[in-house]
Amino acid sequence: MRIGLDVMGGDFAPKATVLGAIEAFKILPSDQKLVLIGDSEQVKNICSEAGFDVANFELVHTDEVIGMGEHPTKAIVKKPNSSISVGFGLLQQGKIDAFSSAGNTGAMLVGAMFTVKAIPGVVRPCMPAIVPKLKGGLGILLDVGANADCKPDVLLQFGILGKLLIENVYNVSNPKVGLLNIGEEEEKGNLLCQATYPLMKETELFNFVGNVEGRDLFSDHADVYVCDGFTGNVVLKLAESFYVITRKKGIKDEFFDRFNYEQFGGSPILGVNAPVVIGHGISNPEAIKNMLLLSRELVTSKLIDKIKAAFN
Amino acid sequence: MRIGLDVMGGDFAPKATVLGAIEAFKILPSDQKLVLIGDSEQVKNICSEAGFDVANFELVHTDEVIGMGEHPTKAIVKKPNSSISVGFGLLQQGKIDAFSSAGNTGAMLVGAMFTVKAIPGVVRPCMPAIVPKLKGGLGILLDVGANADCKPDVLLQFGILGKLLIENVYNVSNPKVGLLNIGEEEEKGNLLCQATYPLMKETELFNFVGNVEGRDLFSDHADVYVCDGFTGNVVLKLAESFYVITRKKGIKDEFFDRFNYEQFGGSPILGVNAPVVIGHGISNPEAIKNMLLLSRELVTSKLIDKIKAAFN
Repeated sequence: MRIGLDVMGGDFAPKATVLGAIEAFKILPSDQKLVLIGDSEQVKNICSEAGFDVANFELVHTDEVIGMGEHPTKAIVKKPNSSISVGFGLLQQGKIDAFSSAGNTGAMLVGAMFTVKAIPGVVRPCMPAIVPKLKGGLGILLDVGANADCKPDVLLQFGILGKLLIENVYNVSNPKVGLLNIGEEEEKGNLLCQATYPLMKETELFNFVGNVEGRDLFSDHADVYVCDGFTGNVVLKLAESFYVITRKKGIKDEFFDRFNYEQFGGSPILGVNAPVVIGHGISNPEAIKNMLLLSRELVTSKLIDKIKAAFN
Repeated sequence: MRIGLDVMGGDFAPKATVLGAIEAFKILPSDQKLVLIGDSEQVKNICSEAGFDVANFELVHTDEVIGMGEHPTKAIVKKPNSSISVGFGLLQQGKIDAFSSAGNTGAMLVGAMFTVKAIPGVVRPCMPAIVPKLKGGLGILLDVGANADCKPDVLLQFGILGKLLIENVYNVSNPKVGLLNIGEEEEKGNLLCQATYPLMKETELFNFVGNVEGRDLFSDHADVYVCDGFTGNVVLKLAESFYVITRKKGIKDEFFDRFNYEQFGGSPILGVNAPVVIGHGISNPEAIKNMLLLSRELVTSKLIDKIKAAFN
């Protein structure tokens, strides 16, 4: 297995990315290779400073970088030798089995759609986020930003994608899928939720448990919380701000600790033809290491094949 | 001034409502009368038990109650002698200056729209919620549930309504109005936000500070956070759940304490022709007292006249 990493992506790249890759190397078995895509000279220097033999990595040199603020589509088109563009090229050609980056999220989404493309039948690939449960364990919220406006059939598909992710990667069997809404009753909600509820109620593709509300997000009401990417992104950033506030206030609690993005490493793009993971822009080496381990997990779990089978 | 209270509304009514009214009575000057609408016999008994002279209140007897789970429109039509229906009748006739209830939120919204009606020019009345700021003070989030689906002109109006509320009732001068979105840049967001941003950018009706994100809700980025009622309701319930979690975990902190709904007493319906306040279903006497004081504040601040003038 060959796991590709954009070493130029993220606010603290390439130092944080290379150091994270070194940490991941220490854990991965010898047949799971890390392929570092970016400025090879910088990678060598960082490895040298860290006293690490760079020969443990495969290096793919690139001399362009897509900045965090660049327009995704324009950047992908104009910078064919950027680490993100080259990474997706390698993924498309099967030269790496997974690709991850803590760089420009939009460019990662566009790159995935342009190269490995959506799995046939998946209307809109999406991005999930992990939400910790108060009683322990975790849930999945999706979409958290790939699709600001959604249609009912798209939300139904998010339910399928979320179920497959949490079953295969996080080992939750027969996960409960809930529709994030503003009331418990079937007829509640905005037009989108009112139209989605009957689709979910009738589906046999997952275990639908009905509407769930904002207050239920950390409960055991559901394992998969489905919403449009606008709502999900607002919710995710609000939840993250609570974590930041508890940290600033010096509040130590295992529940709040489980909001720490570092331990989850990133978010896969669900519904494309290959494992792709997007990390948080502020990723430190610990987060990068976990992003790489998540990439590995996406490959070993054969999640993509399972999604393809579900949408066949 | 005569402040009307639905004594039958709320999970702990009529005991919590009558005890809350007694607390409010102790604070209000003698020319600000409380009008208790509901089962007079029960009111008398609760006052008697509390050693309080019921003659301090004006009583309006009603013998029907709209339950928390009843369908709002049907209940209002079928129960003309319910405390909510009678309360709105008194408000419409000018026999009370404000009406508040911790009962069925939907019935309160429908009752307000059927009787005192929307202020001419206001497309959709809405409900705000208070959000505490980390640095102290408060902001307003609206709409939090009256309108699940909104159009851009409606969000623009929410900005005006929020500005007038926070200026006149919470004494924040020249409040900053932000659009709750999923990115800072003008072109970000769902179709609703993309269409709303230009309207807000061009308006001279309030001080628009651009897009704000979920993580900014407790910051000083804005004083008024505008969103559709679906997003606002999800956000509000999520924020409330954080407060509940911190309480359960025994975390004492003045910031989290300021999430306590009791101190705000309830949410006015903004954009109707009279002061109407809806309290939390779980209101205790402290919350009811503060709901009545908020009702009083809506009258003394002449907020309704100011909204009428703005939409004239």
